[in-house]
Amino acid sequence: MTTSANTGDTICAVSTPPGRGGIAVIRISGNNSLQAADAVFKAARQKKIADTAPYTMLYGNIVTPAGEIIDTAVAAVYRTPHSFTGEDVVEISCHGSEYIQQKVLELLIAAGCRMATPGEYTRRAYLNKKIDLAQAEGIADVIAARTAASHRLAVTQMRGGFSRALNELRDKMIDFASLIELELDFSEEEVEFADRTRLFNLANELQARITRLVESFATGNAIKNGIPVTIAGETNAGKSTLLNRILGEEKAIVSDIHGTTRDTIEDTVTIGGVLYRFIDTAGIRETSDSIERMGIERTYRKIEQSAIVLWLSDINEDLSPQYAAIQKADKDVILLLTKCDLKTPAEIAGSIEKTERQTGMGKGKVIPVSARTGYGMDELFAALKSAARRPEYENDIVVSNIRHYEALVHARSAMQRVIEGLQTAIPSDLLAQDIREATHYIGEITGEITPSDLLQTIFSRFCIGK
Amino acid sequence: MTTSANTGDTICAVSTPPGRGGIAVIRISGNNSLQAADAVFKAARQKKIADTAPYTMLYGNIVTPAGEIIDTAVAAVYRTPHSFTGEDVVEISCHGSEYIQQKVLELLIAAGCRMATPGEYTRRAYLNKKIDLAQAEGIADVIAARTAASHRLAVTQMRGGFSRALNELRDKMIDFASLIELELDFSEEEVEFADRTRLFNLANELQARITRLVESFATGNAIKNGIPVTIAGETNAGKSTLLNRILGEEKAIVSDIHGTTRDTIEDTVTIGGVLYRFIDTAGIRETSDSIERMGIERTYRKIEQSAIVLWLSDINEDLSPQYAAIQKADKDVILLLTKCDLKTPAEIAGSIEKTERQTGMGKGKVIPVSARTGYGMDELFAALKSAARRPEYENDIVVSNIRHYEALVHARSAMQRVIEGLQTAIPSDLLAQDIREATHYIGEITGEITPSDLLQTIFSRFCIGK
Repeated sequence: MTTSANTGDTICAVSTPPGRGGIAVIRISGNNSLQAADAVFKAARQKKIADTAPYTMLYGNIVTPAGEIIDTAVAAVYRTPHSFTGEDVVEISCHGSEYIQQKVLELLIAAGCRMATPGEYTRRAYLNKKIDLAQAEGIADVIAARTAASHRLAVTQMRGGFSRALNELRDKMIDFASLIELELDFSEEEVEFADRTRLFNLANELQARITRLVESFATGNAIKNGIPVTIAGETNAGKSTLLNRILGEEKAIVSDIHGTTRDTIEDTVTIGGVLYRFIDTAGIRETSDSIERMGIERTYRKIEQSAIVLWLSDINEDLSPQYAAIQKADKDVILLLTKCDLKTPAEIAGSIEKTERQTGMGKGKVIPVSARTGYGMDELFAALKSAARRPEYENDIVVSNIRHYEALVHARSAMQRVIEGLQTAIPSDLLAQDIREATHYIGEITGEITPSDLLQTIFSRFCIGK
Repeated sequence: MTTSANTGDTICAVSTPPGRGGIAVIRISGNNSLQAADAVFKAARQKKIADTAPYTMLYGNIVTPAGEIIDTAVAAVYRTPHSFTGEDVVEISCHGSEYIQQKVLELLIAAGCRMATPGEYTRRAYLNKKIDLAQAEGIADVIAARTAASHRLAVTQMRGGFSRALNELRDKMIDFASLIELELDFSEEEVEFADRTRLFNLANELQARITRLVESFATGNAIKNGIPVTIAGETNAGKSTLLNRILGEEKAIVSDIHGTTRDTIEDTVTIGGVLYRFIDTAGIRETSDSIERMGIERTYRKIEQSAIVLWLSDINEDLSPQYAAIQKADKDVILLLTKCDLKTPAEIAGSIEKTERQTGMGKGKVIPVSARTGYGMDELFAALKSAARRPEYENDIVVSNIRHYEALVHARSAMQRVIEGLQTAIPSDLLAQDIREATHYIGEITGEITPSDLLQTIFSRFCIGK
């Protein structure tokens, strides 16, 4: 793979959000981008983009081959390798009319560019080794992030913090593999180079790191996709009304997100800067035993996937006998007494006390609400916030990408075989295969590993001269 | 008005379209913009925006006061007066997440900026004399333009072509006024400086120019807001179905436009690069005489406002007797025989021939269509295109702004009084007042005239030394 891999074409696309605005930016990247930009953009005082120093801007006009001026614009010039893609890049800032954006693309295509495919600039940045795979994925996450926490996670990944942690892990694994492989190379001589106890401790240390990353995914996924909150209770307890009220009280910093399905928008909401994913459940019906059982089972499955359970109970009714089963699940449960809008403060206080006694729940976990009037919503949000806090990963590396998670799970399995192999004293070549597999999966995350990497490390370190 | 009028504050705003994209641009303008940008943006290798040469870019990070890195970004530096607003300007290109855009604005506000009001950058450009009023309006039109023709009109206006034509006209009017005013100044001496015949010819020449601009508004408005096309015919002729078909066949280069009312979108459509504004009329009902008369009257008023009339006639019915009245209007009429989907080609040919004979319409003006199947739509679009052609203004200055149009109408009235005054030999001071008024209205368009302008011209040219 050379530095200019896959960069034969010069690509162009509008890089700013779609639609109309004050200005729009059209990005051109590739070997021919300076010439293509010069064909379309006529700078003041006959200056040429191709003769312009990097990191400088030219003022001029977008002009058709027939000489018609389409717009006044500014061209920003970046030169290889000091650009986002690593190639020559020109960014044309024109007025943000959809007509102009379309027209500039047409002119660039006539000048020999082609339309960029989605993510192609980032792909080129990766192919040209400006960033690794995890960083490339981080860029996509940065653009999609809707809360401070998910943004922070994505920025760490984009800036390579996540990759550094993985590379450090991978380096240690390659060191480990080197020791095994060395043994393998000299196996005919029946020499045992590595101290098995030292190897065993090292393997366990590596496995602990991998496991920590695997386990961080629950947090990372919650930060990125929302903390899963199940809304459960009997059919008439007011689950849908509450969900509507919560969605209506949306404190999200962003409104409609383009490209997100309507379903996801309806169920995801940012409250106090934290993203929650509300999972509505079918109400548990008190009909025949078998149907009831199915309902509970379904609700249980959803509760299993969630971090927090909101159990709704009509203040006018007794607490459902199903609640006891829910309470046994190892989840953060908040019990809401619904339909409080027609109750007096004394009646509400009595119900809270009774419910706390029945369930053994602590203060602040039984909350009276009225989805109709909004009564009690602030208390509910405070309880959610308190339940959502997970300080343990705050200053740590957190996995939020399912591809990374799956690679880590594979790496953990392979590493487990290494540990077991060391305990049962299996042959070095089998151990070597497992450690190679574990290393491969870690390398897959940053996209850096190739089979020759491992060999390269062995040869360079040990200088066997064979 | 000084060069830095109204620019005490440093303003910031997202200049790219709202929403999520690859990159977003946040523009900062004002006396303190370099310092504010330095507070928020930490360039690589400790470089400072305040020390950076104009038209250059710095790579760096958006950083909170607490040191958290929000994004990697590029800052483009412009220095007064060589920027869009004429002030120091920094444009920060960050990743196009809504969270980041919001966060950068928050940080800039904490650093002493305030949010820009709509159009405030352009207003500053005007106040700092980078552009005139008509150019400022041209920028808004450029951003809103949806067709090649409306775009071309707006670009001419933005780039000052329109202003130059007006300034040339205004200069001539000021010359004219100077002659009158000079006479006025020396009126006690009973000297008649100006040759009345020469003045009369000059006034007529100016009036012809103003009138040409006033009349160009019909074209300019059609280009900008769509060529008005009335859809008329009897109630059951299929007007709504046709309108829906036309809107469904939309060949517009843009889809939904944000900020445009739904009504406008529904009725406006781009066909073959030309914008049409379809005006649906209530069908003419054949009930009592008085109601019928009202319907025709209403339809007539709409026809008066339109350039093209589509008259719909059900192929299964006789041509409405109302059609004769419509045909008398001085408009381009296209007669559509509707509901042709169940007719044979021979039946259709017979109906066309009969209608052409009845109405005396030429070839290609009677078109058989079926809104249900789309039959005949290409012929209809071709007929619309042919009717819409107005080559007379193609290389001329065209007024498309209602404010300009109204100012020109006022100027024309005042100029008419000048012409009449010259004919009836009214006193110079009354003539002077009218010519001053006409000049004032022309100056209002570009926003350049102030009462002192006129005096200044007189004093500087005539050097009377009084």
